[in-house]
Amino acid sequence: MEKHTLTLADVATKERQYLETIFAIGDGHFGVRDSIPFTGSRANKLPVMLVNGFFETNPIVYGESAYGYAKEHQTIVSLASPRNFDLATSKSSSAKDGDWSVTLAQTELDFETGELRELYDITTVEQEKFRLAVVSIVSLDGLHQIKLSYQLTSLNYEGELRFNRPLFVTTEDGANSDDDPRIALRKAQLKTTNMSLDKGTISWNLTTGTTNQTIAERDAVVELPKNFKEAETKNGFSGHGQIEIGQTVTFEFVRQISEIDNGLNEISKQYDFVLTNTAILKEFWQTAQIKIDDTKLQKGIQYNLFQLYQSAGKNGLANIAAKGITGPGYEGHYFWDTEMYMLPFFIYTQPQIAKQLLSYRYRVLPQARKRARELGVTAGALFAWRTINGEEASAYYPAGTAQYHINADIAHAIKLYFDVTGDEDFLQQKGALVVLETARFWLAYGSWSLRDGHQKFCLYKVTGPDEYTALVDNNYYTNRLAKENLAFAAWLIKHGYLTASQKENALFEEAANNMYLPYDQQLMITEQDDESPAMPTWPFETTPATKYPLLLNYHPLMIYRHRVNKQADTLLAEMLFPNDQEQAQLQRDFDYYEKITTHDSSLSRSIFSILASRLRLTDKAYDYYMDTALMDLVDLQGNAKDGLHEANLGGSWLGLTYGFSGLYVSDGKLHLSNQLPEKIDELVYRIRFQKRLLEIQLHFREIKVVLIEGQPLTVVINGKTKNIN
Amino acid sequence: MEKHTLTLADVATKERQYLETIFAIGDGHFGVRDSIPFTGSRANKLPVMLVNGFFETNPIVYGESAYGYAKEHQTIVSLASPRNFDLATSKSSSAKDGDWSVTLAQTELDFETGELRELYDITTVEQEKFRLAVVSIVSLDGLHQIKLSYQLTSLNYEGELRFNRPLFVTTEDGANSDDDPRIALRKAQLKTTNMSLDKGTISWNLTTGTTNQTIAERDAVVELPKNFKEAETKNGFSGHGQIEIGQTVTFEFVRQISEIDNGLNEISKQYDFVLTNTAILKEFWQTAQIKIDDTKLQKGIQYNLFQLYQSAGKNGLANIAAKGITGPGYEGHYFWDTEMYMLPFFIYTQPQIAKQLLSYRYRVLPQARKRARELGVTAGALFAWRTINGEEASAYYPAGTAQYHINADIAHAIKLYFDVTGDEDFLQQKGALVVLETARFWLAYGSWSLRDGHQKFCLYKVTGPDEYTALVDNNYYTNRLAKENLAFAAWLIKHGYLTASQKENALFEEAANNMYLPYDQQLMITEQDDESPAMPTWPFETTPATKYPLLLNYHPLMIYRHRVNKQADTLLAEMLFPNDQEQAQLQRDFDYYEKITTHDSSLSRSIFSILASRLRLTDKAYDYYMDTALMDLVDLQGNAKDGLHEANLGGSWLGLTYGFSGLYVSDGKLHLSNQLPEKIDELVYRIRFQKRLLEIQLHFREIKVVLIEGQPLTVVINGKTKNIN
Repeated sequence: MEKHTLTLADVATKERQYLETIFAIGDGHFGVRDSIPFTGSRANKLPVMLVNGFFETNPIVYGESAYGYAKEHQTIVSLASPRNFDLATSKSSSAKDGDWSVTLAQTELDFETGELRELYDITTVEQEKFRLAVVSIVSLDGLHQIKLSYQLTSLNYEGELRFNRPLFVTTEDGANSDDDPRIALRKAQLKTTNMSLDKGTISWNLTTGTTNQTIAERDAVVELPKNFKEAETKNGFSGHGQIEIGQTVTFEFVRQISEIDNGLNEISKQYDFVLTNTAILKEFWQTAQIKIDDTKLQKGIQYNLFQLYQSAGKNGLANIAAKGITGPGYEGHYFWDTEMYMLPFFIYTQPQIAKQLLSYRYRVLPQARKRARELGVTAGALFAWRTINGEEASAYYPAGTAQYHINADIAHAIKLYFDVTGDEDFLQQKGALVVLETARFWLAYGSWSLRDGHQKFCLYKVTGPDEYTALVDNNYYTNRLAKENLAFAAWLIKHGYLTASQKENALFEEAANNMYLPYDQQLMITEQDDESPAMPTWPFETTPATKYPLLLNYHPLMIYRHRVNKQADTLLAEMLFPNDQEQAQLQRDFDYYEKITTHDSSLSRSIFSILASRLRLTDKAYDYYMDTALMDLVDLQGNAKDGLHEANLGGSWLGLTYGFSGLYVSDGKLHLSNQLPEKIDELVYRIRFQKRLLEIQLHFREIKVVLIEGQPLTVVINGKTKNIN
Repeated sequence: MEKHTLTLADVATKERQYLETIFAIGDGHFGVRDSIPFTGSRANKLPVMLVNGFFETNPIVYGESAYGYAKEHQTIVSLASPRNFDLATSKSSSAKDGDWSVTLAQTELDFETGELRELYDITTVEQEKFRLAVVSIVSLDGLHQIKLSYQLTSLNYEGELRFNRPLFVTTEDGANSDDDPRIALRKAQLKTTNMSLDKGTISWNLTTGTTNQTIAERDAVVELPKNFKEAETKNGFSGHGQIEIGQTVTFEFVRQISEIDNGLNEISKQYDFVLTNTAILKEFWQTAQIKIDDTKLQKGIQYNLFQLYQSAGKNGLANIAAKGITGPGYEGHYFWDTEMYMLPFFIYTQPQIAKQLLSYRYRVLPQARKRARELGVTAGALFAWRTINGEEASAYYPAGTAQYHINADIAHAIKLYFDVTGDEDFLQQKGALVVLETARFWLAYGSWSLRDGHQKFCLYKVTGPDEYTALVDNNYYTNRLAKENLAFAAWLIKHGYLTASQKENALFEEAANNMYLPYDQQLMITEQDDESPAMPTWPFETTPATKYPLLLNYHPLMIYRHRVNKQADTLLAEMLFPNDQEQAQLQRDFDYYEKITTHDSSLSRSIFSILASRLRLTDKAYDYYMDTALMDLVDLQGNAKDGLHEANLGGSWLGLTYGFSGLYVSDGKLHLSNQLPEKIDELVYRIRFQKRLLEIQLHFREIKVVLIEGQPLTVVINGKTKNIN
């Protein structure tokens, strides 16, 4: 693999909060935003460290409440940054003066080591000038530690220099915007306990006020300039010494952040972060690598996958939040995005992480069973639409709890995981039960109605992925995915993964086989739901560009009564099941839905790209793909400052593999086809499939599958079965 | 008319808060609950005086907010009762001790004078015993004053007696129940200013903190026992004197409450409340009287109409709140109930009040225009679903703002008012513009779709009257009423009441003539909306009686995805337009909807009674009617303590007139038919119609219309035209 890093030259703006997100680093457990280290001069108002799954609750207040509403907000806790490092000269201190000029000269995020290397130009209020190099590196081996190296060079100052490493600076709460449901910050009530000071080490515990979760932190001095004296206090390390003009001094610290409700490991000062990470990332890139003959795109995709990897919970207790641990958007909640947009990448390239992410769903199955009862559904389980701890935290059920499809999405991901990995153990121990309980939910939820002369299984008053269309009957996406869920449950029973009654099995099969899938005979298009084609189309011609996203500028009632999509909905289902539609049908559906889709959701463009690929609309596929692959690097949605669009990071992998190379699994077989846009001459990527490592090589009208590890297999390429040896 | 009063023998329980509602008195401007006068021993925690339209606002907090949501709660202010009157003996005082035994021995509400006469047995903590007679009377002539007479008899006490008339005792806020949207109390921030003390008179102003409304109050001594000395302070009147065993002393006060933002009139101590009210109520009963050969029913109906009269705003600035001014339920808000349930009684018997109530809607037309724009509708006006000041205060739009039908309901009431009164002036000056603006709303809101081979005018994503079915397409009730609204606007243009373009007129007519009205060809029933007949029926068989009303015990998603009605919806439309359906169709619809209606709303049974009458299901009609007529007197809904069900009060008049006597107007003619239940042998009532006063006399299979005042007319009786001379 070529050596790749991301620098300031690769990103959209130098706006501070945007950069904090883009250059965030983490290990899936904790994430550190790239905030300016100086507490006095910081522009950052957003949290600077987040721990995946570490949250507070607050009662949800409703204008008018009702039975069964979600009771509590869950909000990831805003923590002090381990990068905080303050300086003072004899006349001027950053923390107090607050208006040092601190200019970022260089930033470089290294995808091979995980290092974040920065250079700052500093001018104090007394015009004393320094240059500061900061290297931050999170170890990726599960030790949950970050090393910070500060190299300070005096450009014109001679005299005493003081440093201070404040540990408990909490950032101000961000704008608690009532108007934007995508951002939400609420106050935490952290308690700091068990503080202990040791020679060069400070340890403490942080406990949340409402959820009583505890993490331990430890901060240790690794290196200080020789002539500097240090002291440790309950507020952190501080010290002082002399610096001369032209002199460079180095300060180095390691911070550990324990797992939730777990103790700390030992810190070894000899631990080599770069060496460790290089080995781990080599292994990661071994399967995650993408080769594409477009430097910008290649870097963008590499960046996306690296960030996705950094954000993924890896212990079965945490998942991947909508913004990862790169920002506070969506309160650190997990959604269906994990299963439908992010998991395929992990399933095909890092199955051990995929397994942990799916194990999280198994762990919260009891909460999901309880939730189904609260919704009046007498059997099965309903996973929360947005959650950290498994309980529903959506305060707006029409675009929350009503998105029941999350149940089928999780079952779909379990099926894909099994189809690709063949991991029988996971299926038997965890996966099958989740599929069974979600299938039971559909069976209890749904009902039989006469449709076109036949009794069909129907699902009323649901919301599909498209949040601009709410509480509808027979949403195609939901019904299609529920059909798969029910059929997979029946398959699992038949193949001995589950014990269930013959009757239940028969009911699953009957519902799956007769699931109603709406279709408009006159327009000859696949209907999004029972009613939508008759509704008036959104008045696009009188909607100025400034009024997007619509959800921030129009009442939900205005949006719901028009044909307008926030994102791929019916098309997402068609993308997932390539054998459902003929090309002509797919083309009609694509044309129909493309006209009414705003892409106000970041989950949309990747799917449109894949379907455009499948339809050989290669220019269109390329354009959608560019927007996908570079979404946050060009700040397409305008809100990257709140965190990366994690689902879209995954979507950028889907666009390449599902899209350009037509990847899917059907009847246990891998299917591929060359759907490369004309602007791309070469695409090479790797996947793991049924205990093999394969490299897929696409060139203009050529496609080749190379077996790198494992036994020969049969693959379907461009519709023809081929043996790969 | 027989002399009628309501006593404790006529009501459901002696529960204190229930009695406070039932025996509430008022004049439409202010209402006083029948709370125990002693502030120390009061059990009442609900407001004890309410002024119609006097309210505070509070920001609505949403779990997740969105564009265009209602911004502020509006809450009627809880005021101190003018009935407050404290006593103290030399050893024991009520206000401080708080545990005197105060037992209500008698209560009598007089429908001919408006007097509320009560007798209390009092035992102090020192076992001193008294009997207290309290007479409260609100003048009904618009002077907004109440006279309180307290006659105290000592049964075993001799010695000094002190009295105190506290003016500013504010009651504690009631249970601010988050779980029941039907109750809501929030704190007010009243300021008391302009206090002035005069010999025997105390005056002051009360100003709300958020809405800056002011009312003035004045309290005056009319009579005190001869040997008593009095003093007035900023806290109210107090005084002392001697009492002997067996002696009776009288205290008498008058309290005035000004109109909002208006000054007080003079108080005349010679004013004769009983004389004044007797004349006014004689005039009222002249047309409002009902004669029915069932004492209980007759009293019940008399009570209902008397309370409805007491609750009605009469100045064009206030309307009738869902609970009138008898309790704090629904925050003192005005809903569609006024137009659809209460106005017919006023239109037919007290047209001057009907005119004032409709004038209120004209007054808030600017707010309604603004609201339509906020909803993205480019023309016309949308009246607020629940409001005091005309701005939307519903914090749950699916069962609030989405009930657009309120627009057509108001237009319907204006049409009925005109059809019955022939009041050209009101139509020209106010009514026609409201009809035009509501019609414009429908035209801009609706859209054309192909239905059964024809282009039909459709209304998507609306909620009808039935709040157990939300956000549906083509709600029959909404579409049918909108059709009438559009047609009436066209008629007004054609007949010169409005100037509008030929084109607009044509568009109104086109939409009215082609309004889509859903009908299920297979079931042969009128559909509630596009989708409902296919949904599963609510699991009535597994729903215990304790789980009603459903809205307090099931998630809205559970309710919405089942066929279940809270109240008459399609049937209400069919009730309003008797010529729309043949009897056989009506019978099918009645049977279909009766099975799925819970009557969880108090607006339901009266409509079922009327339709049962029309279908000659006389026993059923009678049973539904008994539940309607006596709803609050038997506390059928269990929440009369929060206030009377004002809509149902009106519904009890509808059941008699629209139901038992088949009253309706069509093509300018009055229609009547004898649909009397077998259990009722006689029903006589009066209405005003086109400048006439008529008496309708029904006996077993007989019906007679007597012209009491005015010119001869033609009436359609039992389908046959008849001249009435």
